[in-house]
Amino acid sequence: MSVQPVVSPAEDKAMARAIELAARGLGTTSPNPVVGCVLLDAHGIVVGEGFHAYAGGPHAEIVALAQAGERAKGGTAVVTLEPCNHTGRTGPCSEALIHAGVARVVIAVTDPTPRATGGAERLRASGMDVVLGVRASEAEDGNIAWLTSVRRERPYVIWKSASTLDGRAAAADGSSMWITSEASRIDVHRLRGTVDAIMVGVGTILGDDPRLTTRDLRTGSLAIRQPLRVVVDSQGRTPVDARVRDAAAPTLVATVATFGKGPDGRVDLRAVLAELHHRGVRSVLLEGGPKLAGSFLAAGLVDRMIYYVAPKLLGDGPAALVGAGVTTITDAIDLDVLDVDRIGPDLRLTAKLRSPTKEA
Amino acid sequence: MSVQPVVSPAEDKAMARAIELAARGLGTTSPNPVVGCVLLDAHGIVVGEGFHAYAGGPHAEIVALAQAGERAKGGTAVVTLEPCNHTGRTGPCSEALIHAGVARVVIAVTDPTPRATGGAERLRASGMDVVLGVRASEAEDGNIAWLTSVRRERPYVIWKSASTLDGRAAAADGSSMWITSEASRIDVHRLRGTVDAIMVGVGTILGDDPRLTTRDLRTGSLAIRQPLRVVVDSQGRTPVDARVRDAAAPTLVATVATFGKGPDGRVDLRAVLAELHHRGVRSVLLEGGPKLAGSFLAAGLVDRMIYYVAPKLLGDGPAALVGAGVTTITDAIDLDVLDVDRIGPDLRLTAKLRSPTKEA
Ligand SMILES: NC(=O)c1ccc[n+]([C@@H]2O[C@H](COP(=O)([O-])OP(=O)(O)OC[C@H]3O[C@@H](n4cnc5c(N)ncnc54)[C@H](OP(=O)(O)O)[C@@H]3O)[C@@H](O)[C@H]2O)c1
Ligand SMILES: NC(=O)c1ccc[n+]([C@@H]2O[C@H](COP(=O)([O-])OP(=O)(O)OC[C@H]3O[C@@H](n4cnc5c(N)ncnc54)[C@H](OP(=O)(O)O)[C@@H]3O)[C@@H](O)[C@H]2O)c1
Repeated sequence: MSVQPVVSPAEDKAMARAIELAARGLGTTSPNPVVGCVLLDAHGIVVGEGFHAYAGGPHAEIVALAQAGERAKGGTAVVTLEPCNHTGRTGPCSEALIHAGVARVVIAVTDPTPRATGGAERLRASGMDVVLGVRASEAEDGNIAWLTSVRRERPYVIWKSASTLDGRAAAADGSSMWITSEASRIDVHRLRGTVDAIMVGVGTILGDDPRLTTRDLRTGSLAIRQPLRVVVDSQGRTPVDARVRDAAAPTLVATVATFGKGPDGRVDLRAVLAELHHRGVRSVLLEGGPKLAGSFLAAGLVDRMIYYVAPKLLGDGPAALVGAGVTTITDAIDLDVLDVDRIGPDLRLTAKLRSPTKEA
Repeated sequence: MSVQPVVSPAEDKAMARAIELAARGLGTTSPNPVVGCVLLDAHGIVVGEGFHAYAGGPHAEIVALAQAGERAKGGTAVVTLEPCNHTGRTGPCSEALIHAGVARVVIAVTDPTPRATGGAERLRASGMDVVLGVRASEAEDGNIAWLTSVRRERPYVIWKSASTLDGRAAAADGSSMWITSEASRIDVHRLRGTVDAIMVGVGTILGDDPRLTTRDLRTGSLAIRQPLRVVVDSQGRTPVDARVRDAAAPTLVATVATFGKGPDGRVDLRAVLAELHHRGVRSVLLEGGPKLAGSFLAAGLVDRMIYYVAPKLLGDGPAALVGAGVTTITDAIDLDVLDVDRIGPDLRLTAKLRSPTKEA
């Protein structure tokens, strides 16, 4: 059990709010983290709020300071991530806080990036009161994709799957439109809006010819920001007229020719993830199919699973997952189920992969 | 929407309590229904409670009347099922209520049995105030096995399944001990205690050699009442030394020789259910395996599903369900998920089969 640092109720509440604010940036801040900030004046009254909305845009602290103006003086900055200490596309937030006369800074999570770290130290050196670790696990959850990508030097991988209660991804005749309800499909589009890339295997392209765009399912109108579409395709069999190649979003077809072979002779998944990381992709939604998901799981490269379960039984048809490298029950891949929600008639399970020990 | 009959808050509360009381009889009243009764005096004060505890034992109304004694006079009997009007192993409850001077009877569900019905009429004829349909759907749920067996003239069938999140009943090497946690296995033994028979296919006997008894998993001690064990076994391949043949509980091995052939040339499942109904079995827990469950579903003979899901992935191994007669997605078997519970690390889904239209 971690000891919670001592903060006032107003500061604790401000941190909860800052975490909420941070989440608004999900999907648009990459390669940056999401960050939220609440400024309290000397009496604990909220005088400014901000979040980091997009890469290149102002940091959360700067937005909140601009709102607070003079009232920040002698007050407290409550921020979900350690304020940066380097001049990137914007100036260091630590200096801005010092300049504004803030007396105290309450931080949830320290910044693990070598380049940006040192903010807390700089603030302390200037005579400020600095508290670390407030609502840390909550804030960490909110930034999990970015934090994981920094720690593992590869994007955070979310495997999304949709199947029947008995684990079938399609019926015996291949029909799968639609296993899950419209409500679930709308939820998937929302989920796509929070990631930087969407990935499938060429089997899914050949079978379903999906668009893989983020759009309003009712009107068909595209979201302003579209995640990168990635097709893992050893021999480059993705048809030239596949929908995934249209102009609606950028697309990467990852072949053996470009990325080399993995242990199974197919596309080297680590090499693909490394390239995505290099391009600033911090989170990938792995949308299938069953074989590509199996390879990802066998390689220990899945961090989270979001599983839409339709209240239906098929008793036949392709399985939701194949080839995950498990042959006996004691080697089963363990999950922590975090949430079970109802999405229309379907269930949505959110789970964390337990210690992907296979990853070297 | 059904209109709720008008009752006092005390009567409504008493009915909720009566439904609770009734549930205590689950597993020991067959071939009778479960019934609960609460007696209120003329001021609405609870003066007696009872439930039907075992076949041949006193009915709920009689127990409650005995408790209330003189205080029943001018009071109200609140009972989950229409009081019986016939002399079976005990005298008619309608007469007992009249004799005790009860002024009003509040009933949840009417008795669909031709022999026992007419209780409400008899009470009205005696000048009593009779209200029907209070908390009817709740009471109906509590008595669903018995009511279904009366209406369909076959036992209520609950399919229990245990598998991984990706729908595997065992790993590729056949290992399945234990897919689910001890908590789930304890829960299965509790569930066994509520039914009259447990059924498996011969494949499960040959593969796992289960005991199929109801016992305390920690101490191994058997429950006093053991459900009938039923093995569906076309050619009589159940070994003479199979555990299911031990003396711990009665066992029926249902072969083609005794029950005839169904449409697929294997044991006629309707004939087996008819025989069980004849023996007073009102509820069957179908414990597998995947093939027998498929045949039951294909025949439209499953009423409820209880699905223990382990938070694990296998990606290989036998499927939880096979041969349910579905080949295309629009013919998928639809379920209504009633509950999702956490049982230790596992999930337990309880679902109702939606209109088993295939059943003639
Ligand atoms: N229910 C769902 O959530 C869902 C989601 C998606 C798809 N699906 C269904 O799944 C079906 C397709 O199944 P699938 O398993 O063939 O699709 P898939 O997993 O999308 O594609 C698998 C293919 O990807 C290629 N690949 C390249 N490198 C790979 C690597 N390292 N590991 C694994 N695969 C690699 C392989 O072909 P090459 O070696 O030739 O490149 C492989 O056959 C579709 O028809 C669709 O209906 C269902
Ligand atoms: N995870 C779970 O919840 C669970 C539960 C139970 C079993 N299992 C696993 O399932 C494995 C056995 O699988 P299974 O599918 O072979 O077992 P099963 O469903 O228990 O048995 C199937 C056999 O029952 C006989 N049968 C007779 N009449 C039938 C009818 N009308 N419809 C269907 N079957 C009929 C058939 O053999 P004959 O025609 O020769 O009689 C058939 O092969 C076991 O090894 C066990 O590990 C898992």
